[in-house]
Amino acid sequence: MTQAPADGLMPFHAMEILKRAKALEAGGRTVCHLEVGEPGSPPAPRVIEAVARALPNAQGYTNAKGLTELREGLAAYYSDQHRVAVDPDSILCTMGSSAGFILAFHAAFRPGARIAITRPGYPAYVNTLLGLGFGISEIPVRSANGWQLTGSDIAAAHAMEPFEGLLFASPANPTGAAVDRAGLADIVSTCKRLGVQLISDEIYHGLDYRGPSVSALELTRDAIVINSFSKYYCMTGWRIGWMVLPEAFLRRAEILQQNLFISAPTLSQIAATAALGERDYSEVQKAGYAANRGLLNDGLRSLGFEIGAPSDGAFYAYAGIGRFSNDSMAFCEALLEQAGVAATPGIDFDRTDGHGFVRFSYAGKHESIELALERMARFLG
Amino acid sequence: MTQAPADGLMPFHAMEILKRAKALEAGGRTVCHLEVGEPGSPPAPRVIEAVARALPNAQGYTNAKGLTELREGLAAYYSDQHRVAVDPDSILCTMGSSAGFILAFHAAFRPGARIAITRPGYPAYVNTLLGLGFGISEIPVRSANGWQLTGSDIAAAHAMEPFEGLLFASPANPTGAAVDRAGLADIVSTCKRLGVQLISDEIYHGLDYRGPSVSALELTRDAIVINSFSKYYCMTGWRIGWMVLPEAFLRRAEILQQNLFISAPTLSQIAATAALGERDYSEVQKAGYAANRGLLNDGLRSLGFEIGAPSDGAFYAYAGIGRFSNDSMAFCEALLEQAGVAATPGIDFDRTDGHGFVRFSYAGKHESIELALERMARFLG
Repeated sequence: MTQAPADGLMPFHAMEILKRAKALEAGGRTVCHLEVGEPGSPPAPRVIEAVARALPNAQGYTNAKGLTELREGLAAYYSDQHRVAVDPDSILCTMGSSAGFILAFHAAFRPGARIAITRPGYPAYVNTLLGLGFGISEIPVRSANGWQLTGSDIAAAHAMEPFEGLLFASPANPTGAAVDRAGLADIVSTCKRLGVQLISDEIYHGLDYRGPSVSALELTRDAIVINSFSKYYCMTGWRIGWMVLPEAFLRRAEILQQNLFISAPTLSQIAATAALGERDYSEVQKAGYAANRGLLNDGLRSLGFEIGAPSDGAFYAYAGIGRFSNDSMAFCEALLEQAGVAATPGIDFDRTDGHGFVRFSYAGKHESIELALERMARFLG
Repeated sequence: MTQAPADGLMPFHAMEILKRAKALEAGGRTVCHLEVGEPGSPPAPRVIEAVARALPNAQGYTNAKGLTELREGLAAYYSDQHRVAVDPDSILCTMGSSAGFILAFHAAFRPGARIAITRPGYPAYVNTLLGLGFGISEIPVRSANGWQLTGSDIAAAHAMEPFEGLLFASPANPTGAAVDRAGLADIVSTCKRLGVQLISDEIYHGLDYRGPSVSALELTRDAIVINSFSKYYCMTGWRIGWMVLPEAFLRRAEILQQNLFISAPTLSQIAATAALGERDYSEVQKAGYAANRGLLNDGLRSLGFEIGAPSDGAFYAYAGIGRFSNDSMAFCEALLEQAGVAATPGIDFDRTDGHGFVRFSYAGKHESIELALERMARFLG
């Protein structure tokens, strides 16, 4: 199951665990789903209503860049939330952030270019880059440092092995680490100094528990910004995201979109347009995650997991399992099969040190977290 | 607008024309849309009903491969329509055929591999391959030969410049050329003999006007088959397709799907599952295209376009414009601006000889074809 093809491509274990969890459920078991980063709630009621209204008449392709209303809505979002003016024409609506990454890599880099990412980090970063024939450079971040990436980390890694791009997320997956404005400015200026193209993955924006999210667009117009409706707007299965592109890459990204994807799903674009007006609903969800965050962090610590302060943002706890196991995959398999709790092994996020960590998502329902903690107490006791 | 970046990537002109046509419409003009391959009808009513029912509860990711019901429905489709047994586990549901191509290329080939395609052919083939860093080899097909690709064409091209893969569509875009069983067997056996991996693009299956579509799966299990709900099931904007993979590539394709795309849009998968039961509706649409096919072919010939017999399949007429122009882009721009008829310049499909051709889609309404012919008569007269 974890066999690696020759180029280092690895399965996304969270999806493997999800598949096994669904098979268990099909056999009648109940599973607490703490393995995938999926909000436990549906999109806002008005989003569903907008889709229901559009359903009979919204079948065709849209323009490659996406519906004008959606791109104008996103420009208004940047104005309202980040106080930056973004031209709707510099926005491209994508099939989730997933397609955004593919477009960003091929718009900004030549095949084979080396792009830096943090370790631990979102597993699809490594696998997508390797799968598409790009090189990677992993910059380690550490629990003792709050899992933060700094400009000096970037410069040190670049001095050892130069790279052309940096793909960076704040809040981050799996650690939930989020930079503040000064931290992001340090990263932006370091990239500029080194001639490194920054791709800012802002998919967890809106889910910062310590203050407003800071967009790279507040500090530079040279970054490619990637975002999605999946997390803050509870729309994972809709596969709808967006990117904001610097002028230098805009035309090439649009051409790639026309050819690689044609356009993002039409109904999902309509849903997304409505979602932008429903941030009050998203704030209610966020309050739920915030409550889960404390519950899960305290619960994990009292069970003996190694874990620091509650995560800055997103909806993940990345916990050390040194007291229980040195094999996070075996630990997660046993946890699922024996306790009915699905979590993601750290090896998804960190092939070097991830054997000692597990990621728990707290995006689900409060009761599901409570039940998972009870089940784990029995399993570990 | 047609400026090519350094690696030969070109815009998809059909999408450019669509963008300009929508701008004209926003300004109050009416446009006959013969430029994009989009059915004029929505999906079957029961498809819409199934989505409306699922809407409140279908938000999350699915398994990476796609809903079991959908993959089982597709296996039943292969059994019913093609008399072949396909394991649902060898089927992967994708974000349109677009994502299927990306997965196929990266599952079966190393970065930089050379893949052959026909010229003329679907423009996204060239642009996706070049955009992703693969090489291409173009095999010319000719009007005099009914635009057919033969095994000897493949062998001759391979002898001049070897390639590792062949991406082949029947019915084809833009010509509508379709192979019969003997023709496909010739292509399959030639690929096998040369050690060339065949990717069979079957997106226009069901839209053969001269008999049942022949799937590569009827002749070999070594081909990668790509298909979509966009055309036969009238679901372009839903971005939902599928691929059938040989055992050798299946696991790698699933891993790539997990990482590059996570899963296809959930509501679109539900819509697609329902669509498989609505082939009677699709046959009604097909009868409409069949009527359009004769009307458009006769009309174009009488207007002075160079065109042979009506196309075998799909919903395109690929017509020579030698009597009017030697610049298909300028011709299409004038046709749109002056006559309100949107069509696609041949340069989209053939960078060498496409200046002398235009593609007209007859997937729309009968009245739209009639009006387009009247407008063209006035424009050319």
